[in-house]
Amino acid sequence: MRITILGGGGFLGRKLAQRLARDGALGGDPVEALTLFDLAPPATPEGAAFPVRCLSGDVADPAALAAAIPVGTTHVFHLAAVVSAQAEADLDLGLRVNLHGTLAVMQACRALERPPRVVFTSSVASFSGGQEAVLPDDARQLPANSYGAQKAMGELLLQDASRRGILDVVSIRLPTVVIRPGRPNRAASSFVSAILREPLLGLPTELPVGEDFALWICSPRRAVEWFLHAATMDTAALGLDRGINPPGRSATVALMLNALEAVAGPAARALVRPAPDPAVAAIVSGWPAAFTAERARRLLGFSEQESLEELIEAFIAEDLEETRRERGL
Amino acid sequence: MRITILGGGGFLGRKLAQRLARDGALGGDPVEALTLFDLAPPATPEGAAFPVRCLSGDVADPAALAAAIPVGTTHVFHLAAVVSAQAEADLDLGLRVNLHGTLAVMQACRALERPPRVVFTSSVASFSGGQEAVLPDDARQLPANSYGAQKAMGELLLQDASRRGILDVVSIRLPTVVIRPGRPNRAASSFVSAILREPLLGLPTELPVGEDFALWICSPRRAVEWFLHAATMDTAALGLDRGINPPGRSATVALMLNALEAVAGPAARALVRPAPDPAVAAIVSGWPAAFTAERARRLLGFSEQESLEELIEAFIAEDLEETRRERGL
Repeated sequence: MRITILGGGGFLGRKLAQRLARDGALGGDPVEALTLFDLAPPATPEGAAFPVRCLSGDVADPAALAAAIPVGTTHVFHLAAVVSAQAEADLDLGLRVNLHGTLAVMQACRALERPPRVVFTSSVASFSGGQEAVLPDDARQLPANSYGAQKAMGELLLQDASRRGILDVVSIRLPTVVIRPGRPNRAASSFVSAILREPLLGLPTELPVGEDFALWICSPRRAVEWFLHAATMDTAALGLDRGINPPGRSATVALMLNALEAVAGPAARALVRPAPDPAVAAIVSGWPAAFTAERARRLLGFSEQESLEELIEAFIAEDLEETRRERGL
Repeated sequence: MRITILGGGGFLGRKLAQRLARDGALGGDPVEALTLFDLAPPATPEGAAFPVRCLSGDVADPAALAAAIPVGTTHVFHLAAVVSAQAEADLDLGLRVNLHGTLAVMQACRALERPPRVVFTSSVASFSGGQEAVLPDDARQLPANSYGAQKAMGELLLQDASRRGILDVVSIRLPTVVIRPGRPNRAASSFVSAILREPLLGLPTELPVGEDFALWICSPRRAVEWFLHAATMDTAALGLDRGINPPGRSATVALMLNALEAVAGPAARALVRPAPDPAVAAIVSGWPAAFTAERARRLLGFSEQESLEELIEAFIAEDLEETRRERGL
């Protein structure tokens, strides 16, 4: 297994690299080499018993991608992206990274001797539907934001490249990932992590939507499990359709805050202050709040999202200390 | 009305330009200027009472597009494309024209003072489903060929640009257009026109699929009517969803040959010789043979496809002589 993680310095990329370092294997076969690629050079994961190259560059630069996806590569995790609010604020940047970056991944894969498995992170933001929606697996993608449109375009490109035998993609339409460590970022969904993370750090935070607002979420731990499953599953079962709606969980803000209170007490919950923000609400209110995810669950063997309490406890166990340290708290 | 036709030298582009020249107006407002753009300089349509510029260039070249879509442009008909069999044979060429060309159209529109109406020709080839399918208006696009994938990507790009106020697109997912004048081309669907056109020219031709094979078709006359409607309709009714499945007609090869016999006699039909071609069948058999087209028909006012006999008679009246002349027959 010779593996490349594009966006290897990001939150999910780091977790995936750590997991590969810990396991030393992917799908039962030993990892022989790992390349991490990001805008800034990613850190080497601790305890890796295989060589790790850490490269920096622009994902839309063909030469940089050719270096990041060398001959012999068997697996590419393409997590490099410009997030939702940023792609909405800067169309050219979003197109460059989310569309031209994915074109560059496809072109780099053409130079390999065998089609590599590519795991592509698409997004729930590529769908419309809003609060009332429960989307079936054959729901069409009608994105109401540029990030979602660019992700849907990337899916089409990589799906066609799979049909042509250039690569072998599984596109995971990630739910909103909760709890993100670190600081608030420019994703419109940043608040969804903040309302859990900031109180766990002892910090106040703002809630831009109502408590009855529902979201389709997953934990970072679950996302990494899905990536590994997508990297090793038999893609013959997918046929032409390479887009997966994984089995996340539909949760209201109230349920998330109840779980916070159950784990960390009422004082933690009291740190969340209502502060309606129409700009954020306008973006996130278009995202569907639930999917059936039948195909991923029953047919394709993607694992179920754990409970909200477990999700919070996993953050405390795995990410809270590092987040404190990073933020000088 | 200051109008640009990209792909203005192609079959549908020429017919559209001729129609604008004849009408002198679009939606009741006089045409003030027309720009025709294609790889080779298009011909000026006869009888135009307004200035016509004929430009040649690469649709993926931003400078060429800026010249083709000058300040003041109110309408862009984006018909420039690499057709299905060619896009399948040459991925890079297909991406260049069908994807990067559409990106260049979007960028050129950003330089205008007001968002122009853009009429984009997408295709039935962006769907799967095959012979048994009757696709509803919310069917998702799961293309089984690179041309269809590139068209679906173009739709997403222009739809998002519409949402952002850069332009105002209506994407028409054209059925297989029958009868194309001229010679057989590299579209996988080329035979669908050939089995009617060649016998009308007195020439033998081959049928690569069975007579029970069904297709979703429209006439060039109907396609031009739809373009004009798309250019002048109120797009508020479309909301986010800018893709139109227009009311074509589902027809088997047998029905088409019956109509040929009714119009031109049994000797014409006898010129069609069965010659199964698995490569052609593999592409066209994935295209859906029918759509409900309810939204276009009932809600949006797109006109109905005429009968197969009328379609053949229109070709004889409008295109047969020119086809004879072009081909030296």
